[in-house]
Amino acid sequence: MNLLRILTLATVAIMSHHAIANNTIDPLPSWNDTATKKGIIQYVQQTTNPDSMQFIPVSERIATFDNDGTLWAEKPVYFQLYFALDQIKAQASQHPEWKTEEPFASALKGDLEGVKKSGMEGLVKLVMASHTGMSTEQFNASVKAWIKTARHPTTHRPFTEMVYQPMIELLHYLQDNNFKTYIVSGGGVEFMRAWAPEVYRIPKEQILGSSVKTQYEIVNGKPTIMRLPEISVNNDKAQKPLTIQTYIGKKPVIAVGNSDGDLEMLQWTKTSSYPSLALLVHHTDAEREWAYDKDSNVGHLEKALPLAKKDSWTVIDMKQDWSQVFPKK
Amino acid sequence: MNLLRILTLATVAIMSHHAIANNTIDPLPSWNDTATKKGIIQYVQQTTNPDSMQFIPVSERIATFDNDGTLWAEKPVYFQLYFALDQIKAQASQHPEWKTEEPFASALKGDLEGVKKSGMEGLVKLVMASHTGMSTEQFNASVKAWIKTARHPTTHRPFTEMVYQPMIELLHYLQDNNFKTYIVSGGGVEFMRAWAPEVYRIPKEQILGSSVKTQYEIVNGKPTIMRLPEISVNNDKAQKPLTIQTYIGKKPVIAVGNSDGDLEMLQWTKTSSYPSLALLVHHTDAEREWAYDKDSNVGHLEKALPLAKKDSWTVIDMKQDWSQVFPKK
Repeated sequence: MNLLRILTLATVAIMSHHAIANNTIDPLPSWNDTATKKGIIQYVQQTTNPDSMQFIPVSERIATFDNDGTLWAEKPVYFQLYFALDQIKAQASQHPEWKTEEPFASALKGDLEGVKKSGMEGLVKLVMASHTGMSTEQFNASVKAWIKTARHPTTHRPFTEMVYQPMIELLHYLQDNNFKTYIVSGGGVEFMRAWAPEVYRIPKEQILGSSVKTQYEIVNGKPTIMRLPEISVNNDKAQKPLTIQTYIGKKPVIAVGNSDGDLEMLQWTKTSSYPSLALLVHHTDAEREWAYDKDSNVGHLEKALPLAKKDSWTVIDMKQDWSQVFPKK
Repeated sequence: MNLLRILTLATVAIMSHHAIANNTIDPLPSWNDTATKKGIIQYVQQTTNPDSMQFIPVSERIATFDNDGTLWAEKPVYFQLYFALDQIKAQASQHPEWKTEEPFASALKGDLEGVKKSGMEGLVKLVMASHTGMSTEQFNASVKAWIKTARHPTTHRPFTEMVYQPMIELLHYLQDNNFKTYIVSGGGVEFMRAWAPEVYRIPKEQILGSSVKTQYEIVNGKPTIMRLPEISVNNDKAQKPLTIQTYIGKKPVIAVGNSDGDLEMLQWTKTSSYPSLALLVHHTDAEREWAYDKDSNVGHLEKALPLAKKDSWTVIDMKQDWSQVFPKK
């Protein structure tokens, strides 16, 4: 065998191996082989192929994800509320008045129905008492400590294991294809920044959410950012595209949500001059997760479903499209 | 000569070449060989060397730059004001009442002194009339069109050539060493995003500034973000560290400014748990640029200078430290 023939055979072998690798490494192994998965993969392949008419330059590959109900579960209530309740309990000894004052009295008894009775006003009181009056550093530390030990009330798993495995795969698939992935959530931005970077592989500066007002103070000679008991931005509904424009200054080409609170973000994304992908998670799996839409206390989904049809969004049917929901234990 | 000796000589030759290359490519050619330049280079070399005690992980290499007076000039007045005046002139035919109404009447005559007489309130009126009432897309297009043709009133150069060549080099040097460079300016965020990405090699999402309120609207069936005539964030002084925390969620390790408006940003940066670098540009060069500090209408610099000494900031003396100020024509 001459040298040329050896080299040719080696080249063919290397190229075949490469081709097989490309076809057999499934980027979304927890997704069933449905039209949804095929559509996502086709979108990514086309928009990242420089020879395709659908090509999107790297600088414009912005993908925005809602968090609650989209990246992790949100039942029985938003997980951030459990943090608030646990903080209230931890601070109770310094607040004897909470024993008789609502919503604190119900919160201390772990009575969520009682808390609900004090309505949105009561909820805001709980959040303010547990989320403000400290520096951002202190708040960050308290969330980090809590998320290590807190457990989901029905599955008893850490909240960071209540993330959707198919979504983790989608995030990584997009990241590997040079999409810049952002969280654009109604959840508190500093609450998420304390744990989400490790869980989702998304840096703090790509996590956007609701926020409280802050103030720059010199405390004991040390510059400090204090969290004030006043909402600055409620990052829901029409605020989501506004937050995206303010923080990123670019229109996303991919947006992923699960509720009417994400409607405007998905609608805005579909007006991109580039090919765009709007994904709407529909919670249809009462067995492995929860089944809910328009009658739910969280993740209310009513207006966005008919719009999804009209505006060519892709509805992710959790039961049909996902072979696995949560990460394996 | 045996093979080993040839290989050894070749290796030595390659290594020497590498060493020479490392030492002779000056990353900051427009900086004089002063302690300022040496300090910057030493800082970057140490903090990017994994074997150094001063090493900073890539994810924490956040560098924030003021814009007006730090990256580009700000005399005789902030350049964004010339944009406002030109927009007012362009819109005058639709506003016959401006002929007699201040500050518009003075603006239309190009009488800056007259504009000044109507104070901050007048200035805000000019900015609102020229910067709001349109979509972000329309505003972006009008800034892009203006910056192509507008000229500085005394140097007659395009405003994008009124940038400081040494600062462009510093930005690129930091970017090449995996520092994430941000603009954190009192200037309008959407005004800067229309031209700064090309000029500074900083993507839109790393440009933070002052902003007006916005509103999500469906205009003729098309989702649109409209700019409203109300200031949302005045990104100056203590607001700068708050904006950094809100947008980035990390404390910078490098901050660069030129006025008392940057004091808190530099002070905040110096509290980093990593080695930090605070740079304060002092405009000392009446010949090549302008010489000003505490008596100036822009870039007021008074409190920050003594703090720079006390808090180990590096003062950049424009006349002493820069061999070239603006890019060559």
